[in-house]
Amino acid sequence: MEMNRRQLGKAVAAGFAASVLRGETSQALTFDGVAWVPLMPGVWKATIGNPERVTPVSSRLAAACIEPLGKMSSVAQPPIPAPVGTISSRGVKVELLLEGHEHIYGFGLQFFSIAHRGKKRVMRVNADPKSDIGDSHAPVPFYVTDRGYGVLIDTARYATFYCGEARSKPDAPLVASDSGTVPTSTSDLYGKTLLDYQRAKVLVDVPNCTGVDVYLFAGPTMLEAVRRYNLFSGGGVCPPEWGLGFWYRAQSNATDKDISKLMQEFRDRKIPCDVVGLEPGWQTHAYSCSFVWHKERFPDPAEFVKEMHARDLHVNLWEHAFIHPSSPMFPAMLKLSGDKGVWGGLVPDFQDPQARKVFGDYHGNTCLDLGVDGFKLDECDNSDYTGGWSFPELSRFPSGIDGEQMHSLFGLRYQRTLWDQFEERKRSTYGLVRSSGALAAPYPFVLYSDLYDHRQFVRALVNSSFSGLLWCPEVRDAPQGEEDLIRRLQTVVLSPLAMVNGWYITNPPWKQMDRQKNNAGELADGWENLENRCRQILGLRMQIIPYLKSAFGRYAKDGTPPFRALALDWPDIPGIANVDDAWMVGDRILVAPLFAGEPGRSLTLPPGDWHSFWTGELAHEGATLHFGATEPNIPLFIKTGSVLPIAAITNSTADVNSRKIAVRIFGDGHLPFELASDDGPSLRLTWDAAARRGYVQQSGPRQYQINEWERT
Amino acid sequence: MEMNRRQLGKAVAAGFAASVLRGETSQALTFDGVAWVPLMPGVWKATIGNPERVTPVSSRLAAACIEPLGKMSSVAQPPIPAPVGTISSRGVKVELLLEGHEHIYGFGLQFFSIAHRGKKRVMRVNADPKSDIGDSHAPVPFYVTDRGYGVLIDTARYATFYCGEARSKPDAPLVASDSGTVPTSTSDLYGKTLLDYQRAKVLVDVPNCTGVDVYLFAGPTMLEAVRRYNLFSGGGVCPPEWGLGFWYRAQSNATDKDISKLMQEFRDRKIPCDVVGLEPGWQTHAYSCSFVWHKERFPDPAEFVKEMHARDLHVNLWEHAFIHPSSPMFPAMLKLSGDKGVWGGLVPDFQDPQARKVFGDYHGNTCLDLGVDGFKLDECDNSDYTGGWSFPELSRFPSGIDGEQMHSLFGLRYQRTLWDQFEERKRSTYGLVRSSGALAAPYPFVLYSDLYDHRQFVRALVNSSFSGLLWCPEVRDAPQGEEDLIRRLQTVVLSPLAMVNGWYITNPPWKQMDRQKNNAGELADGWENLENRCRQILGLRMQIIPYLKSAFGRYAKDGTPPFRALALDWPDIPGIANVDDAWMVGDRILVAPLFAGEPGRSLTLPPGDWHSFWTGELAHEGATLHFGATEPNIPLFIKTGSVLPIAAITNSTADVNSRKIAVRIFGDGHLPFELASDDGPSLRLTWDAAARRGYVQQSGPRQYQINEWERT
Repeated sequence: MEMNRRQLGKAVAAGFAASVLRGETSQALTFDGVAWVPLMPGVWKATIGNPERVTPVSSRLAAACIEPLGKMSSVAQPPIPAPVGTISSRGVKVELLLEGHEHIYGFGLQFFSIAHRGKKRVMRVNADPKSDIGDSHAPVPFYVTDRGYGVLIDTARYATFYCGEARSKPDAPLVASDSGTVPTSTSDLYGKTLLDYQRAKVLVDVPNCTGVDVYLFAGPTMLEAVRRYNLFSGGGVCPPEWGLGFWYRAQSNATDKDISKLMQEFRDRKIPCDVVGLEPGWQTHAYSCSFVWHKERFPDPAEFVKEMHARDLHVNLWEHAFIHPSSPMFPAMLKLSGDKGVWGGLVPDFQDPQARKVFGDYHGNTCLDLGVDGFKLDECDNSDYTGGWSFPELSRFPSGIDGEQMHSLFGLRYQRTLWDQFEERKRSTYGLVRSSGALAAPYPFVLYSDLYDHRQFVRALVNSSFSGLLWCPEVRDAPQGEEDLIRRLQTVVLSPLAMVNGWYITNPPWKQMDRQKNNAGELADGWENLENRCRQILGLRMQIIPYLKSAFGRYAKDGTPPFRALALDWPDIPGIANVDDAWMVGDRILVAPLFAGEPGRSLTLPPGDWHSFWTGELAHEGATLHFGATEPNIPLFIKTGSVLPIAAITNSTADVNSRKIAVRIFGDGHLPFELASDDGPSLRLTWDAAARRGYVQQSGPRQYQINEWERT
Repeated sequence: MEMNRRQLGKAVAAGFAASVLRGETSQALTFDGVAWVPLMPGVWKATIGNPERVTPVSSRLAAACIEPLGKMSSVAQPPIPAPVGTISSRGVKVELLLEGHEHIYGFGLQFFSIAHRGKKRVMRVNADPKSDIGDSHAPVPFYVTDRGYGVLIDTARYATFYCGEARSKPDAPLVASDSGTVPTSTSDLYGKTLLDYQRAKVLVDVPNCTGVDVYLFAGPTMLEAVRRYNLFSGGGVCPPEWGLGFWYRAQSNATDKDISKLMQEFRDRKIPCDVVGLEPGWQTHAYSCSFVWHKERFPDPAEFVKEMHARDLHVNLWEHAFIHPSSPMFPAMLKLSGDKGVWGGLVPDFQDPQARKVFGDYHGNTCLDLGVDGFKLDECDNSDYTGGWSFPELSRFPSGIDGEQMHSLFGLRYQRTLWDQFEERKRSTYGLVRSSGALAAPYPFVLYSDLYDHRQFVRALVNSSFSGLLWCPEVRDAPQGEEDLIRRLQTVVLSPLAMVNGWYITNPPWKQMDRQKNNAGELADGWENLENRCRQILGLRMQIIPYLKSAFGRYAKDGTPPFRALALDWPDIPGIANVDDAWMVGDRILVAPLFAGEPGRSLTLPPGDWHSFWTGELAHEGATLHFGATEPNIPLFIKTGSVLPIAAITNSTADVNSRKIAVRIFGDGHLPFELASDDGPSLRLTWDAAARRGYVQQSGPRQYQINEWERT
């Protein structure tokens, strides 16, 4: 029988690995005949050795969007040479060439830095990353570079990436060298240019396997490489409109009546709200989970959900995946779970379709069929440095994978399990999740975490855009007081999911910041002032929903991240590309948040001229603007020429008034605005500068009402 | 051919692993016939599968001390059942039973916690541990428990230990459960007793191998288990007397004349000093290292060293292992190095005897033969999250090991390389090193690091005692000012190596705390007062050297750690066993340091009655004492009944006056003091309470002069 190259690779890899393990050799085997094989337009694949059976791509549960890939600019040749692969007893090494001064971005939800050249990144799932080593609750073995391509190492292992700092040994002696002045400070020492940028490589250490597939995504720009990756992943999610409204999570032990009353207060006081979230108290047992409604707190869950719907509120349920022995699912899931337990509960083998079906159907019957609109999937991000808050990497699952692989896939498969139920019912959902990974773009879930540094939150939002992730910098606490609450709220309303999480307070935070007093019902003096400031910020969210819908529409259609790093639009300007505290929303809003406790901030404007959203004032590219700590609003800049729809502020997106639009024109208005709703194109706003008037083209079922055109 | 069990294990493991890798099975193979095999008195070994060729024990370079092991209390049976071993594609899993409420200590130089039950520990070499996950620059895959035994997993892999928190899945449903009150605060949630202490196990995940040896060390006490481990390692080091004096490291760019002048100042001003350390400036190139004397700074190194010796000063040289192309060693080491470089230099393959010989001989010829007394081995602790400051785990070395294994062994093999040279010349040495590992007890090197939190420093000192390590909480900086300098100095003089590291300052820190002013020669007003306080603290060090020699003598003879956690003496008293901010020096001095910036501290006294070293005041076991922030001295307590030798304060240990002893008697003096010098027993001090007089027995070449007996 003649073997093709791939079969040959497999056989050689397995035979070699076996001889390593028999102790016959301690050497390594290099595969230098690896080649890029075209897969889809602008996407190539190279196979090294014998890849594992379960990987993000090989066991993917969402199909690639091939048609829009074909509509992208054509790239005939792979932008970089094929990788060199080496197999040894420790696994597979992948080597990819880097050019001088090429910059590297990506690796999922990174909290500590944006530019990764010269660093080592471990793609380890860890809910408590404390330093800049790669650990994350959503690591993604994917990076892009400013040369305009992306690389995915298709593994569910904790791969380590050496981003150009690991060098071959020198091969020739030098004549005597003189150190001259000797550094006598750490900064001198660290400041030395230690990296030779020539002949550098990305080295990837993939443990516990004898092969791996490498995927290459062409640009020609970095943004196009990300778009290709997102389309390959299945295209970006387009959330239902209600998902873009404001979310509030009630106190964990709140009853149906408590929540009903709280939501009535929101309505009465004109606090917008589209989604109310229930925390652990809705269940009879929560650590681990029974997934059974608590009859005292929620005597009639169906009626409760119905009441919420009647008041234009969608219901989101907190849970985690670990199944308490009192759960009705327990008997059926016992054999569909891993060998280790968490909090005395089962760990579902979400890699097994049968486990997804049993777990999913149960949720379908007991939650979706009552009208529940989505879930918050907690604790799936390997908090196991926190005293056993997750399953060990050495766990084994009936599907044949181990705990390490499961950690890399757990968040994704868990999302898919519940998403399937919505799809079966042809209903849309939008939810929250604590872990995700590769190919996540189409999943209707937004990441969040227990970490809480505001700057880290913003950096994560910026970084998420390189890897097909969405991130919610939820407002849960404001350790630095009112200003902190305001600054965090300003950030979250310009993120994929605008949420305040009041799981441990009875009243909304703006009524009392002190937790104990809040729960004792002691409201702060003059709380109405703070509420008013918060209401205004939430109002901004409601105003930009049509704009956000358009940004998400593009995400679904062509993979363009709706919230993204400045590096994706301006990779070639170093001062802009490495900005980790500002981001773009859609194609024309630039956000530069303020942080409580800091003396203010500066922002250097990227190319193009920009108008302040608040004053309309024009500033030019390259200008460095300063914002003091007392600046009341979040600095927002609109690309000159923009036509921008501003919706009326309503209590929820269900209010027909939310379709009333005031159109603002920034500069000459040469950038028309196109709103693609879930149902297809629905609105095009064009400004005729010469005639000083605007034009509206509407189509599709959802009609907007244009109330005014306002020139800034 | 008939196979014995071990051969069978090997064959089965290799065959199985090969089939895993061929993709024929994704299951795991459990070895349940593993048995403890007696190895040495109170030491057993159990072999799972096919252990790797290079491990800490299999490639050990110091022999076990079998004779003293035989003198320990006899233990007929292994104290715990044999482990269960499982092999899968990810490596070897080892399962060891734990009993209810058994507490776990060890894992090398841990900075963040002392008690590890319920935690996950990764034995990853990482110079910058930022959280409590096990990472350390000296991780050791060895733990002891308060049931009185120790376990060593003999691997150079980054093993992960799950210390009793990973549980099997539950196997039976429960009737409906009610959560009752729901936690509404993180502390409520985290405070829940989530761990079922029954049926717990230590699980160990050993990656990249198909077998491992497990070593068991009997007690019956925890201290005896540690002693057995230390004797198995080769017994504890007993440093030369000069190594116990005060060390000062001069500024990096100091010349021979600068150092000579500084040392003269020390002598003139009665600042004790036994060792002067040279930082990178002694070399022509330092990152990477040329190992060539810098002729402008040190025109005649032999003469310089000779001059230092003539002034009773020993010379210690800073270096790291990475070989610059300008080094004379470079051509010979090129083929004896790993495939990756660091700072443009070679990474020596210290696992290869030939590499150790070339590297060592060069040092022998160019340093030892000039009289150099020791080295400070920097940067060998895998700082590779710091932009390529080390070699990647996927590196390969000619000896056949990879970078992961090399990192676990690099510090030890590097130490051995230079130690060999001293041994060949029958000279003693004592030095510093940034990384170490398993079986380190006999190595004449003390760990230090760039980390700098004073409380972490003290916790590391406490933890080092569980794993055969020594730790120097060097004084380099005092971010909180003079009080900080004093508190850190008080700590370091009660540690294995009393050193101030002035690598970035021209003048000693007590003359000027501000770095810039120090280097500009602007001395602080009234610096003599601070110098005086420091001189007194260094004086304490000189006074206790005979006592320290005795403690180290026991370390060498029977493996008792000279500096140790209270847990090792009182494992059964929870309030004492988990103390991480106090330690024992020898068998009768209890140290409870103060920390600058804290309001003071408390200390609960362990069993036995205790006298204040400073006032002689008696306090009883269980008493909780409080020390205010203004307490000038470090709290020191002496076990009642102690006979304690106090040496005269001299400029160095070479001064014959350092042999003049004042004997202090605490309480009834029923605990005689025995001083075993390098040359054997030399002094025994006994107090006859009835006769109210003391007796001296001297033997051996070094004669002490007893000047007085003072009852406290």
